[in-house]
Amino acid sequence: MSQNSLNTTLNDLTSQVRLFLKEREWEKYQNPKDLAESICIEAAELLEVFQWVRTEESEQFKNKPQKAQRIKEELADVLIYCLGMASTLNIDLTVAVLEKVEHNKKKYPVEQYRGKANFDT
Amino acid sequence: MSQNSLNTTLNDLTSQVRLFLKEREWEKYQNPKDLAESICIEAAELLEVFQWVRTEESEQFKNKPQKAQRIKEELADVLIYCLGMASTLNIDLTVAVLEKVEHNKKKYPVEQYRGKANFDT
Amino acid sequence: MSQNSLNTTLNDLTSQVRLFLKEREWEKYQNPKDLAESICIEAAELLEVFQWVRTEESEQFKNKPQKAQRIKEELADVLIYCLGMASTLNIDLTVAVLEKVEHNKKKYPVEQYRGKANFDT
Amino acid sequence: MSQNSLNTTLNDLTSQVRLFLKEREWEKYQNPKDLAESICIEAAELLEVFQWVRTEESEQFKNKPQKAQRIKEELADVLIYCLGMASTLNIDLTVAVLEKVEHNKKKYPVEQYRGKANFDT
Repeated sequence: MSQNSLNTTLNDLTSQVRLFLKEREWEKYQNPKDLAESICIEAAELLEVFQWVRTEESEQFKNKPQKAQRIKEELADVLIYCLGMASTLNIDLTVAVLEKVEHNKKKYPVEQYRGKANFDT
Repeated sequence: MSQNSLNTTLNDLTSQVRLFLKEREWEKYQNPKDLAESICIEAAELLEVFQWVRTEESEQFKNKPQKAQRIKEELADVLIYCLGMASTLNIDLTVAVLEKVEHNKKKYPVEQYRGKANFDT
Repeated sequence: MSQNSLNTTLNDLTSQVRLFLKEREWEKYQNPKDLAESICIEAAELLEVFQWVRTEESEQFKNKPQKAQRIKEELADVLIYCLGMASTLNIDLTVAVLEKVEHNKKKYPVEQYRGKANFDT
Repeated sequence: MSQNSLNTTLNDLTSQVRLFLKEREWEKYQNPKDLAESICIEAAELLEVFQWVRTEESEQFKNKPQKAQRIKEELADVLIYCLGMASTLNIDLTVAVLEKVEHNKKKYPVEQYRGKANFDT
């Protein structure tokens, strides 16, 4: 595989997921409702890594290769279903993320939010 | 912004999220446990778009610009927290996805799984 | 066990969960944040029973004893963590449910909502 | 309402939810797949109360009436959908919980697990 992190776009990754599905003739199963459920299910499996782990303990996970590896794998599962959803609905995920980051920049201006949590919903 | 989908890598997107957090001095809040919760919460908001929508109806969402737009935004939220988690734990998401796709290719050989669902866990 | 469905209250069930935890000296682990995560994780395991199952197929599950049994067990897991949360925070779940049903009755008056979905959020 | 926590069984609560749905002719929407999604969505709304809240801070929520009230309401939402699922599939939730508690008692014998976390899945 000649691809690496320095030149692989989200579109490249989406193509890989699409090819994987096409080769197995699995596109027919990829309806958006079940993909949304699948993203939820994988997100909960990621959360399970942190079940009964206190906040400060979780902050040490970056120094625990086994935990980091498990998180990496669960995160990949979440992402692969996100790519599947994007592929199914012809969503450009790169644009989606760039637009949302721009949106958040305006919503939370630096001068007003520097050092301050905004975490009230 | 000169970036576009054809040359923006996942690493570029992670850098943008990291910069967004750094400018607001919000890195301190980004512990892995709360990021995992946040991915779950955003995944459930995405799922909410499909609540009480029957499977076949969801298959028509690709022709409904309003639905597709909402899905795009919710998907971006899921992804941005995934990028935050990757950034916090120094995970290379591109590698994570490529490795997982390779893993799945071996787990589900084309000859054996073509046209057949494998959806038992 | 002399308890049965005709005379067992939610408070009785909460007492049983509390006793189970007390006997094992597990109350100390039962902080509300991890209980909320656990409810989410178990809810996703319940959802997994329906992953890649179309809506109309799911409607036949009431006639499939194996599916119904698995759902029953996953539902019990969700509920047991809800009882644990109620116990930890001294919440009376019976009152909580009765109040919410009253609230919903007012929010969705019969005359206005009979036969009509209200499923916009 | 003459019902209270001391004499209201889980079956009584299920009957109330069933009546609420019947009066509005909403039973037709209550398919198991969407109910499972709804339980997940409400569980994530409950989790949102704890987003960016550190473990020890969450342990103080029992002394914060506003937080406890919000948790009570979100917990009721989770429960009401669980009752809806039980009603739709003719599951006796009381039996489900009692059986699961018995199962857990055997799985985690007191002598072996007293004071020890068992939290590996």
